[in-house]
Amino acid sequence: MNKKQFAVFGLGRFGGSLVKEFHELGIEVLAIDKSHEKIQQYAPYATHAVKANAVDENALKQFGVRNVDHAFVSFGDDLEASILTSLLLKELGVPKVWAKAQNDYHHKVLEKIGVDRVIHPERDMAKRISHHIISEKMVDYIELSKDYSLVEVVATKKLCNKTLSDLNIATKYGCNIVGIQRGEDICVSPSVDEKIALGDVLLIIGKNQDIIHFEEAGM
Amino acid sequence: MNKKQFAVFGLGRFGGSLVKEFHELGIEVLAIDKSHEKIQQYAPYATHAVKANAVDENALKQFGVRNVDHAFVSFGDDLEASILTSLLLKELGVPKVWAKAQNDYHHKVLEKIGVDRVIHPERDMAKRISHHIISEKMVDYIELSKDYSLVEVVATKKLCNKTLSDLNIATKYGCNIVGIQRGEDICVSPSVDEKIALGDVLLIIGKNQDIIHFEEAGM
Amino acid sequence: MNKKQFAVFGLGRFGGSLVKEFHELGIEVLAIDKSHEKIQQYAPYATHAVKANAVDENALKQFGVRNVDHAFVSFGDDLEASILTSLLLKELGVPKVWAKAQNDYHHKVLEKIGVDRVIHPERDMAKRISHHIISEKMVDYIELSKDYSLVEVVATKKLCNKTLSDLNIATKYGCNIVGIQRGEDICVSPSVDEKIALGDVLLIIGKNQDIIHFEEAGM
Amino acid sequence: MNKKQFAVFGLGRFGGSLVKEFHELGIEVLAIDKSHEKIQQYAPYATHAVKANAVDENALKQFGVRNVDHAFVSFGDDLEASILTSLLLKELGVPKVWAKAQNDYHHKVLEKIGVDRVIHPERDMAKRISHHIISEKMVDYIELSKDYSLVEVVATKKLCNKTLSDLNIATKYGCNIVGIQRGEDICVSPSVDEKIALGDVLLIIGKNQDIIHFEEAGM
Amino acid sequence: MNKKQFAVFGLGRFGGSLVKEFHELGIEVLAIDKSHEKIQQYAPYATHAVKANAVDENALKQFGVRNVDHAFVSFGDDLEASILTSLLLKELGVPKVWAKAQNDYHHKVLEKIGVDRVIHPERDMAKRISHHIISEKMVDYIELSKDYSLVEVVATKKLCNKTLSDLNIATKYGCNIVGIQRGEDICVSPSVDEKIALGDVLLIIGKNQDIIHFEEAGM
Amino acid sequence: MNKKQFAVFGLGRFGGSLVKEFHELGIEVLAIDKSHEKIQQYAPYATHAVKANAVDENALKQFGVRNVDHAFVSFGDDLEASILTSLLLKELGVPKVWAKAQNDYHHKVLEKIGVDRVIHPERDMAKRISHHIISEKMVDYIELSKDYSLVEVVATKKLCNKTLSDLNIATKYGCNIVGIQRGEDICVSPSVDEKIALGDVLLIIGKNQDIIHFEEAGM
Amino acid sequence: MNKKQFAVFGLGRFGGSLVKEFHELGIEVLAIDKSHEKIQQYAPYATHAVKANAVDENALKQFGVRNVDHAFVSFGDDLEASILTSLLLKELGVPKVWAKAQNDYHHKVLEKIGVDRVIHPERDMAKRISHHIISEKMVDYIELSKDYSLVEVVATKKLCNKTLSDLNIATKYGCNIVGIQRGEDICVSPSVDEKIALGDVLLIIGKNQDIIHFEEAGM
Amino acid sequence: MNKKQFAVFGLGRFGGSLVKEFHELGIEVLAIDKSHEKIQQYAPYATHAVKANAVDENALKQFGVRNVDHAFVSFGDDLEASILTSLLLKELGVPKVWAKAQNDYHHKVLEKIGVDRVIHPERDMAKRISHHIISEKMVDYIELSKDYSLVEVVATKKLCNKTLSDLNIATKYGCNIVGIQRGEDICVSPSVDEKIALGDVLLIIGKNQDIIHFEEAGM
Repeated sequence: MNKKQFAVFGLGRFGGSLVKEFHELGIEVLAIDKSHEKIQQYAPYATHAVKANAVDENALKQFGVRNVDHAFVSFGDDLEASILTSLLLKELGVPKVWAKAQNDYHHKVLEKIGVDRVIHPERDMAKRISHHIISEKMVDYIELSKDYSLVEVVATKKLCNKTLSDLNIATKYGCNIVGIQRGEDICVSPSVDEKIALGDVLLIIGKNQDIIHFEEAGM
Repeated sequence: MNKKQFAVFGLGRFGGSLVKEFHELGIEVLAIDKSHEKIQQYAPYATHAVKANAVDENALKQFGVRNVDHAFVSFGDDLEASILTSLLLKELGVPKVWAKAQNDYHHKVLEKIGVDRVIHPERDMAKRISHHIISEKMVDYIELSKDYSLVEVVATKKLCNKTLSDLNIATKYGCNIVGIQRGEDICVSPSVDEKIALGDVLLIIGKNQDIIHFEEAGM
Repeated sequence: MNKKQFAVFGLGRFGGSLVKEFHELGIEVLAIDKSHEKIQQYAPYATHAVKANAVDENALKQFGVRNVDHAFVSFGDDLEASILTSLLLKELGVPKVWAKAQNDYHHKVLEKIGVDRVIHPERDMAKRISHHIISEKMVDYIELSKDYSLVEVVATKKLCNKTLSDLNIATKYGCNIVGIQRGEDICVSPSVDEKIALGDVLLIIGKNQDIIHFEEAGM
Repeated sequence: MNKKQFAVFGLGRFGGSLVKEFHELGIEVLAIDKSHEKIQQYAPYATHAVKANAVDENALKQFGVRNVDHAFVSFGDDLEASILTSLLLKELGVPKVWAKAQNDYHHKVLEKIGVDRVIHPERDMAKRISHHIISEKMVDYIELSKDYSLVEVVATKKLCNKTLSDLNIATKYGCNIVGIQRGEDICVSPSVDEKIALGDVLLIIGKNQDIIHFEEAGM
Repeated sequence: MNKKQFAVFGLGRFGGSLVKEFHELGIEVLAIDKSHEKIQQYAPYATHAVKANAVDENALKQFGVRNVDHAFVSFGDDLEASILTSLLLKELGVPKVWAKAQNDYHHKVLEKIGVDRVIHPERDMAKRISHHIISEKMVDYIELSKDYSLVEVVATKKLCNKTLSDLNIATKYGCNIVGIQRGEDICVSPSVDEKIALGDVLLIIGKNQDIIHFEEAGM
Repeated sequence: MNKKQFAVFGLGRFGGSLVKEFHELGIEVLAIDKSHEKIQQYAPYATHAVKANAVDENALKQFGVRNVDHAFVSFGDDLEASILTSLLLKELGVPKVWAKAQNDYHHKVLEKIGVDRVIHPERDMAKRISHHIISEKMVDYIELSKDYSLVEVVATKKLCNKTLSDLNIATKYGCNIVGIQRGEDICVSPSVDEKIALGDVLLIIGKNQDIIHFEEAGM
Repeated sequence: MNKKQFAVFGLGRFGGSLVKEFHELGIEVLAIDKSHEKIQQYAPYATHAVKANAVDENALKQFGVRNVDHAFVSFGDDLEASILTSLLLKELGVPKVWAKAQNDYHHKVLEKIGVDRVIHPERDMAKRISHHIISEKMVDYIELSKDYSLVEVVATKKLCNKTLSDLNIATKYGCNIVGIQRGEDICVSPSVDEKIALGDVLLIIGKNQDIIHFEEAGM
Repeated sequence: MNKKQFAVFGLGRFGGSLVKEFHELGIEVLAIDKSHEKIQQYAPYATHAVKANAVDENALKQFGVRNVDHAFVSFGDDLEASILTSLLLKELGVPKVWAKAQNDYHHKVLEKIGVDRVIHPERDMAKRISHHIISEKMVDYIELSKDYSLVEVVATKKLCNKTLSDLNIATKYGCNIVGIQRGEDICVSPSVDEKIALGDVLLIIGKNQDIIHFEEAGM
């Protein structure tokens, strides 16, 4: 289905996981790292795994970087390698270059040199976990945009045995129940007559403030 | 709203982001690290920021760890510190201990010693990005459970000017459109008469295989 | 006589001594260490001596770890290697895994991950030596269980020329003289008529408190 | 009971354990190490814990080493410190100096410079464990002298329901049963009419070859 | 005469020389370095010499960087510090930021983040020396622009005793003799009747190719 | 044109740039460095690039250093290598040895051992830049000798539309306008009737004090 | 007796021994080293012992180096410090600077920068020992100049009971017996009638070749 | 003349000089060092130069150490290697083992383990130089035994034009003039009528106190 050529520079935890995920999805991916050990570790998952110094124009050309459609630069702590490799990839014409940043300054430098998207896995996970945790009944929290989220909350007793039309939360609170998780299954298009049961986890989409109002109403 | 006492051990990228997020959400949090520099960097965001060796029972007791309800152990690369601190926190009776793991073996050891949840920020982000990327029209991908996901896809031309009841995808594909993003806004309870416009991003919830069928049908 | 397959991981002072002792007893043993030098040093004593990174599942499988009946993990100071290798060996189904611990936390982690016995050579030796030393006449001290010991004491003048039946210490003190060392020989089944001579060393078994009463009685 | 002054130089695993054991036995002990951290860790167990460079004559004199009756030199891996400190202690007239050796050459050097006893905790533990392990029924093995041992063996079925006088092993094999362990208790002066039960562990003292004969006879 | 505020970040050979030169010219200059030693060495030459980590926004603000008109970033080998400090200075609004680059990639990154001029002292000196050296009679070479240079050449015998109007090199070769050095003096407006003497050094300005033609004509 | 044999010892920024410049000028050059990486980097530009320890007489002889006419010693920070290699080259009879110095003491040592010219690229560039900068209208500054300079200054309004003969600065100030830069071109033999235009950059040669008088006169 | 001011720079084995010897001879000496530990070790032997960086002109001036009459530079392995400090001392006008060299190149550099005498303790000792050893009967060997030596040889049987006038070696061999060592005493002006006894050690002065002839004659 | 087999362990300044001196004297010598570089440097001077770890019994045996008559152990700073190698050589039966010591404790340990002579090149040179220097007229000083020395002193004016019989110093002071150095020559058997000239250097042998009396008498 997908003929794009991906390449991952730097096989740390993030880069290595990317290679494994692409492999699992059946997508071809090149893997590059300075360390022989890393190359051996990820060779089974990559179409090609090459020991190369990414901050070296000739190495990148030999490696066929011109055919790469989308590159990931994931040198975690080596800012110098991260910046110079990202620059080189853009200079060599790679259409999409995404890079992992260590901090805000690093982020800005990456933007200035033309990186297409700057990634912060730890910061994003921290954000998700901290929201996840603030309410006892909230099970997970996913930021959809700056103002909208999807939350998973445990149904309170107050909600039990009520139907979605009884609750009518779209009208009352502006947010909407878009799924109900019971055990391992998720009912993704619950009818308005669906009764909420004890232990149900509700998937709710809405503006952040609407969701907070809904929760504060003891729902 | 929340009186639980949180504590973060290890102020690397993940631990540091956690402290900042808790701070932004108005939640009190203790911060512990061996490095004086890190403590200075995060002191403005933490209720208490303490330079301490977390692998030291006396230091932890003086620090008041017994009052902590939920601890995060985020020593990224120092497996020894991660394992011993997690063990100590469980032995000292901290109700919830979550820890960041470096690899599968680390994960298993953390589980064996009683850690309540093991976290992999880089791996999760890699999973999300790799799914995100495989289809040109997919904008984001969020795993809800092993079998269910929420995806955000750009509406194809085929869908334009059709109403949700025209499409009737819940019946045809088993998955459901639970929101429509237009610009910065997300319509979280679209009516069945809502017409899809060019550039709309559809939020779809469903079983993974149902979503794939929907996509493969050129939708 | 013995067909069990032993393996020693980590050839430091303890691990190396184990390999040599097994060799001297005519027992086959595998030896594994990361260091080329160590492998060369112990190759003459081991059935196979392999340079391998023990924290690597594939290396362990190639090495034939599935046939190992009893493994010793003796990475003294490298807690991470000690913990991960022990876990891997248990996961791979090695029936008995014994590991050397550096401290109490390390000990607990090893127990949690299923290690069958945790060993402390230096602590045990320290215990033996300290007891050994507190009484001028005590020559050695061996802990048999929590409450029982075997001690070797120099016979005091008070005991000289008395027979075991004269002394009747089993009745008086509850402990028993089970051997008498004279020069290089040990009389292991002394008759009740045996007379104690100057310079004899008595081997006494008993409850710790009974032995202390016996000693305090000037015996 | 004991007025001798002990001192431990080097607070590694062995030296640190010694200090703790002396403390538990109520014996006063001086503790010396170069590391501030170690001194803090063991100060609660020592009469005096002093940060000092043991290879420095003036430091040792100020420290009052002339009053020490028995010194332990337990610098594990630092042969230079071990040798020079041991020499200094003998030169300064400490009556008993015991030192831990790393290998045979170290052992010889320590002997040449007059160390009174050279200790090998790991080697001794390795010896004990390897013997312990060779026979399925042997539970523990303790070397009493070059030729004599105490072994703890599980009673075979062949022995069950027999009295000690039935067995008469002192006559037949030259070794002697000096105790019978049942559960947590040890009967330390078993009568000749005592019947051996299933699960009993026999404590046997004897010459090594006699014990082997006894075992080979299927006893 | 000059009221601009200069600042030098990084007191290596280049940065340190800058501070000294500004001092000699009576110009005020701030000096910043991480190393206490460097600060002590250059404090006598700087208006303020501050030990600070330049890659730290707060440190820069406290330091009063907003008043700086012209900053020099001369971290020779620390690309990360060079890039992040340069970015910070531009973000904080310093009007002119000049930075020393280590190589071409570094140069490009500095340009992308908005550095006003990138400096290569060693490369420029190498260029000057190599031209200087290729012709026996050439004494110095200075690049005025891409196409124009000033060269200092020893007068050949062929030129001796000829006047400038005899030679008429402006017409013949397109380049011009703009000075004649005799001993320590330079005649900067030689008359057309000036006769060239043995040992004179001619200062010639012109297009590079015109100068080469002039030289190849044996002049 | 040039048959002299050049050699560059030490391929840092300065030495490496020298090799590249010689290469660009079509001059043969030997390149020597201890680092395999540097040798690979500069091999394409050098006639021979040799990995050798320059502080080794035999290595230098094998390398054919006796045929070298002019050697550059550019070990930046390794004073020991710089001094010993320079000494060796002089002892082996190399006619010209130029060396890069780190500081004044280094400079003096190099002179004492007979180095023909001591080079300070960073200091010279710093001098040039600092002069360059002190006057808003000065564009560049080049030291011709201790007392004479060439400066490039932006023409002030006062000078606009005046001819060189109107100004007659040679007479009035003792310095001379030897070129006028307009855009990318430089007029290297301006006629006395040439009118100065807005934006012109004047190239002026003269004694330093004469140039200063000229500038202070608002010219 | 001696009012000259001595100073020793660098308190390694040679420099430290110098300070101690001067102290024993009652001569005042300054001692300088970078290391706090060394300063503490030698402070009891020196008039002043100062922790200073010798490669720092200001430190040397504050230290009062201008009053030093004779300086010893004994930085064994740090050639850079040895060379720069020696240069500085000569520049600051110290009348006599002696320095210890590591090898021949170091020796030459020290000479070039004006060091008054270059010292090689290990080489000189090696020379003395190697000569000392080549003949079984030679007891010691001291080089007086390039051609002359003093040797101490055990008297052969051939010489026993002969008087010095019998032997008349000054005439026969050109060398001379200037002393006879018997036990701890040395007879420094032996009469011509002195008879040589078994076990005597003869002190002989002469040209090297004359001494060899004497020895080869079986004397 | 000499068939003894020498071996030098450790090719630092002292050991390396020994090898070179033996080579110059035409004596065969084995050279051993851990460093490949050192072996290459001294291979031209040694009969065999072997890269080996001297602290390894097997390496020493393969190396043929049993045939060595006289071994030098010159590991300067590595006390552990120095002590263990010396011990091994004595254990393996090398008749003479001489070793270089770093300090007094090292010296004592070497003696205790049976080293035949302990050498201190730097200390001996320091002693010689310090004596050498205390008297302006003393040119050199050589210790012959604890009480006797040979000194070389410049003849004072008081002595000029006097014959040795005039001076009669053997009678007056107990020491003796055994040679007179004039320019490059040394008269080794001066007649009693020899007149001392200005500039002569007298070689005097005697008891230390006698020599001092002679000097204090203004001679």
